[in-house]
Amino acid sequence: MTSRTIQVDVIRIPTKGPGDVSGLLGLIAGGKIEPSSIRAVLGKTEGNGGVNDFTREYALAALCEALAPHLRLTPRAVEDKIAFVMSGGTEGVLSPHLTVFARSTAPSAAPNGSGERKRLSIGIAHTRDFLPEEIGRKAQMDETIKAVHAAMADAGIDNPRDVHFVQIKCPLLTSERVEAALHRGCTTVTTNGYSSMGYSRGASALGVAMALGELKTEVREDQVLKDWDLFSSVASSSAGIEIMHNVVIVMGNSPTSLSPFVIGHAVMRDSIDLAAVVEALSSVGLSAADAQNGRLVNIFAKAEASPDGCVRGFRHTMLDDSDVGSTRHARAAVGGLVAGLSGTGAVYVSGGAEHQGPPGGGPVAVIARV
Amino acid sequence: MTSRTIQVDVIRIPTKGPGDVSGLLGLIAGGKIEPSSIRAVLGKTEGNGGVNDFTREYALAALCEALAPHLRLTPRAVEDKIAFVMSGGTEGVLSPHLTVFARSTAPSAAPNGSGERKRLSIGIAHTRDFLPEEIGRKAQMDETIKAVHAAMADAGIDNPRDVHFVQIKCPLLTSERVEAALHRGCTTVTTNGYSSMGYSRGASALGVAMALGELKTEVREDQVLKDWDLFSSVASSSAGIEIMHNVVIVMGNSPTSLSPFVIGHAVMRDSIDLAAVVEALSSVGLSAADAQNGRLVNIFAKAEASPDGCVRGFRHTMLDDSDVGSTRHARAAVGGLVAGLSGTGAVYVSGGAEHQGPPGGGPVAVIARV
Amino acid sequence: MTSRTIQVDVIRIPTKGPGDVSGLLGLIAGGKIEPSSIRAVLGKTEGNGGVNDFTREYALAALCEALAPHLRLTPRAVEDKIAFVMSGGTEGVLSPHLTVFARSTAPSAAPNGSGERKRLSIGIAHTRDFLPEEIGRKAQMDETIKAVHAAMADAGIDNPRDVHFVQIKCPLLTSERVEAALHRGCTTVTTNGYSSMGYSRGASALGVAMALGELKTEVREDQVLKDWDLFSSVASSSAGIEIMHNVVIVMGNSPTSLSPFVIGHAVMRDSIDLAAVVEALSSVGLSAADAQNGRLVNIFAKAEASPDGCVRGFRHTMLDDSDVGSTRHARAAVGGLVAGLSGTGAVYVSGGAEHQGPPGGGPVAVIARV
Amino acid sequence: MTSRTIQVDVIRIPTKGPGDVSGLLGLIAGGKIEPSSIRAVLGKTEGNGGVNDFTREYALAALCEALAPHLRLTPRAVEDKIAFVMSGGTEGVLSPHLTVFARSTAPSAAPNGSGERKRLSIGIAHTRDFLPEEIGRKAQMDETIKAVHAAMADAGIDNPRDVHFVQIKCPLLTSERVEAALHRGCTTVTTNGYSSMGYSRGASALGVAMALGELKTEVREDQVLKDWDLFSSVASSSAGIEIMHNVVIVMGNSPTSLSPFVIGHAVMRDSIDLAAVVEALSSVGLSAADAQNGRLVNIFAKAEASPDGCVRGFRHTMLDDSDVGSTRHARAAVGGLVAGLSGTGAVYVSGGAEHQGPPGGGPVAVIARV
Repeated sequence: MTSRTIQVDVIRIPTKGPGDVSGLLGLIAGGKIEPSSIRAVLGKTEGNGGVNDFTREYALAALCEALAPHLRLTPRAVEDKIAFVMSGGTEGVLSPHLTVFARSTAPSAAPNGSGERKRLSIGIAHTRDFLPEEIGRKAQMDETIKAVHAAMADAGIDNPRDVHFVQIKCPLLTSERVEAALHRGCTTVTTNGYSSMGYSRGASALGVAMALGELKTEVREDQVLKDWDLFSSVASSSAGIEIMHNVVIVMGNSPTSLSPFVIGHAVMRDSIDLAAVVEALSSVGLSAADAQNGRLVNIFAKAEASPDGCVRGFRHTMLDDSDVGSTRHARAAVGGLVAGLSGTGAVYVSGGAEHQGPPGGGPVAVIARV
Repeated sequence: MTSRTIQVDVIRIPTKGPGDVSGLLGLIAGGKIEPSSIRAVLGKTEGNGGVNDFTREYALAALCEALAPHLRLTPRAVEDKIAFVMSGGTEGVLSPHLTVFARSTAPSAAPNGSGERKRLSIGIAHTRDFLPEEIGRKAQMDETIKAVHAAMADAGIDNPRDVHFVQIKCPLLTSERVEAALHRGCTTVTTNGYSSMGYSRGASALGVAMALGELKTEVREDQVLKDWDLFSSVASSSAGIEIMHNVVIVMGNSPTSLSPFVIGHAVMRDSIDLAAVVEALSSVGLSAADAQNGRLVNIFAKAEASPDGCVRGFRHTMLDDSDVGSTRHARAAVGGLVAGLSGTGAVYVSGGAEHQGPPGGGPVAVIARV
Repeated sequence: MTSRTIQVDVIRIPTKGPGDVSGLLGLIAGGKIEPSSIRAVLGKTEGNGGVNDFTREYALAALCEALAPHLRLTPRAVEDKIAFVMSGGTEGVLSPHLTVFARSTAPSAAPNGSGERKRLSIGIAHTRDFLPEEIGRKAQMDETIKAVHAAMADAGIDNPRDVHFVQIKCPLLTSERVEAALHRGCTTVTTNGYSSMGYSRGASALGVAMALGELKTEVREDQVLKDWDLFSSVASSSAGIEIMHNVVIVMGNSPTSLSPFVIGHAVMRDSIDLAAVVEALSSVGLSAADAQNGRLVNIFAKAEASPDGCVRGFRHTMLDDSDVGSTRHARAAVGGLVAGLSGTGAVYVSGGAEHQGPPGGGPVAVIARV
Repeated sequence: MTSRTIQVDVIRIPTKGPGDVSGLLGLIAGGKIEPSSIRAVLGKTEGNGGVNDFTREYALAALCEALAPHLRLTPRAVEDKIAFVMSGGTEGVLSPHLTVFARSTAPSAAPNGSGERKRLSIGIAHTRDFLPEEIGRKAQMDETIKAVHAAMADAGIDNPRDVHFVQIKCPLLTSERVEAALHRGCTTVTTNGYSSMGYSRGASALGVAMALGELKTEVREDQVLKDWDLFSSVASSSAGIEIMHNVVIVMGNSPTSLSPFVIGHAVMRDSIDLAAVVEALSSVGLSAADAQNGRLVNIFAKAEASPDGCVRGFRHTMLDDSDVGSTRHARAAVGGLVAGLSGTGAVYVSGGAEHQGPPGGGPVAVIARV
């Protein structure tokens, strides 16, 4: 018996561009989404997913402007209230879209109708703002641990095994931020903006792994982007230019949730691990064939170029391509596989899986209607 | 009964770079490949697959230089003797490699030991050189028809239904070639080099479709890149800067072949058509699970961004990306799916499927050991 | 004697990103810019300048949001009131910035203190929205002619020789717009988004040339992007995804202007025409050495890859690069030259000079403080 | 009085592609170049100049193949005999070309007819092959110092002040090389291929600076790519995938040279330093106007994105562009300026000027006919 129940709704909305909020506003106007219940929005936008991908902050600005009058808040306050994670890069068949998570809580404890079955819940927390020199280092890991625990509590999840996906939005370094640190006499973990995205994603993922007890010992700062044996099986982090703190979104199944959805996950051991995607689908009762019958809500996967330059013994060229960043390559490839199995390109495949799953692989989570 | 028998061997060789011929030379030195029996080499090289992809001509030059002493020919004569098709672009998990087709013919007619079963054969033909203004137009289609018929005869294949893959290498326009045409008072089908690749591939594929009786009526010049209902289910064309003629390689099953391989194909109706890839594998007795047990030799697939901007109702962004060409996107995505099903990135996925399969889709052929 | 006088102010404002309006708001707060007098904003934003360059519409949205409360208008109404031209692409040394043109009119006719000397004025007009199939064709040219004349009248300029720069913002085609036309049974001038930018810019520039009497005869639709001998010496057009009409901004010297600025121009005959840039500087009394003493306000130049593939007899590779669009190359190169002569990268160099100056060249205009 | 005299010839040859050796072979056939006298070839090829720029090794292979029969050597031996430096990247107006340096020595000491005037000479040396983990570190610096001194002696130059350009070709790291080091228990200076190019160029340039006495103290390994106050005013290094050692080419004026050419240089303090290019032209008696009258042989300049993110106080975006590498941006911009001043795009502008000139700037050298 529990003192509150949680109702969660998840809706996938295609977009026509990074500034397109018409789909969301239509659902609000049609009464399908209650604006005040929106807790998180995960989006795929059509930028390059790199340092100068302004589609993320553009989408964020457009969403905050659009929701502000509905929430009677300033756009800036909307950004503080709702966890927005815009992941740039819709390479290949990937299709720009938003996934809106709405949640409401009721004080009375009605049974969720599923007996013992736990249902999808979601919880959110933020870290404090980081200084440029803290990105990719211990401070970012430590603050992430605290935020994951806060988000689990928020979701009504006690058992780390019920956590199936932890999405983090984390900051990156720009030339300006590197300079700012230098002027204060501090050096950043790297001076290269593109590289900094990896450090920030990696440190955040290791924070998740420690928070969930996935690692037996504490991670040292110098193991970030070095010791690839350390990873989380459920962390997914995206770096973006628009923030200086981490946003943590925990997704899992909770006994207090009344939602009609469940979530499960598996771990891709490499970029072509079809079996893992099938396993993730199975974990929520879907097969590749079922996937198109409407029960699938969305798939969330991380993609990265295997750091050893090979996939099952065959050389890949993603890391040596000076024209197209390796994250773009990896999203396109994993997106092709996941879309093939799910029958749609409107899936959330995000690049840069440092310490998110084993090297070259990554977590894959599926939300399905029960 | 037939007056000759054909022996075909197919070997896949990973490469370390576009100029790497060490794997091929090793197999020759080890007696695994008889140089004089090599009829065709299909390669994936790590360029951008676009106009300025010099990895194709570099690989070609390296192969010709390497084989010349073994064949007692000049490099230039090697290029005339063997059909080389270098397809640029190993995006995502795709892995650079060569597929070498060797063939020998015996005058006596021993049964192939398979009873009625037809086995893999290969035949080759060339068109004449085209003028820049002929590319993408009727002359290119007409000459391709003739060359397909010549290549079928060369392969010992009478029935067009036994043809499962027709690989064509075709020319493209450069600024210089467009200028040359203009100086002679002629205009080319387009002045844009990247666009010309599409016209050349499209006209070549329509030539294949007509040659194999896939279309009921003759194709008009103005239907190229316009009437997307017209297509071949087995054509695969790649445009390259290094030639001005079409090279046609017919692959199919022939009653006169004694080879230990068979080929089959299916047609992907879009970029995420997992079922078609499974069907192609099945057609030669493989399942996704079998694929890794050594019977799979290679998969040959074409990829393209759906020209209507959508895949199963969801918008893709491949055609509007001014940073990364749509062929790169499409190869990466289809490569991810095909590699997932076959368990390896060393597959031949080639971009630009104009009139090769339905719009947004493309042929997929599989060669397997019996 | 004239029935009104015009006061024009021009201010260059560096930006920290496409969404950065802090510089503009600071000048408004400091009383340096009266919001209601702003007539036009020309910006350079850090996108790729191609089809999927969303930095332009993001900058536009941010500017409209920022100015809306100051003008007591909705953001949408701000966009209608002020002529915004965001030109994407700050390759090489080019630096993102805004140039704000403010204008006020007084009914009384005080002499401008310069005797006979004409001073900088600016006038603005819009065309109607175009259908996708009208872009790059006669309708776009004809409507542009009308709009240029309207903008000259608005600027108080009678003599076409006093017009030194005509900036046009024009639409482009996306996959969606091409499809929309097809559904209505109409075909667009091209189905390729990137190519459509050239058609739109070219037709707009030819409209300017006809409006100013630079061409003796009317231009036929089929001469667009074909007959490169036809061009305007003062037109500058930028294509952007965010509009479906043309915005026309005429800059010139007017006897009715009291502004402390003058404008002049020259025509670069190719991308390395240093002499033309020097001439443009001279036309307003500046030398390369003077340029840094504060009198220079901004330089406005168009850049393009010479369509014949050569610059002064030496081959360039811009048109054959499938990784980086030719407009990016051209902006970077011309930006390097113009920045070298003006001592700053915060200059307005815009790509795609079809029919804007001779093939491979383009107009270059300079605004200087008297 | 001297015991030998040196005759040097310098010829610039446009190319039609990275594999084009027709111009060189034509000059050999026409008796303009004696193959056995060729000591060095500096080329600009049309690749991306990055890790996967295979145009450099393709050009190298083509040149070695072409020269082999003329020198009665194997292609491999040609590569050892002649110093080839292929610099990838002809962005903007830059035009692919080769500069061939031929040299012959005579034992008798005829005066060079110029009285006191020193004339162009050239000297060459190689380091040993480096291990992957030595790249960008002390070993690379130390070996470079030795090689510079050897090359000066080879050129007949005693005084470091007579050295005006030191071109170095140096190796880079690939995924494979990084892995190889790891397997031996060694870590490389970076695991990122693109980044490794900067380390290799930087360490090589610092080796030159120490060899020529430009720095007062020895450089520590941890100052590479850190302490930007340390630089050479004449070093120019290019990283390429095709070698594992450094090739050092010293160009300067020697009293023992009888050549009809002189060389001079200046240092660009930033990417828009027009005055420095003018100074370099002046140092050999050329003005911007003269440059086109045939006396200019070639200009050699280094370009880089200023590491502080600014050029003369205005933000540039080169370092934050995840689509186009900063070296491509910088070459395009500096190439535009240098081409504008010299009247041709067939100039040698090479990217990545780490420790080659001050941060954001670089050396610029000019060879002119007397």
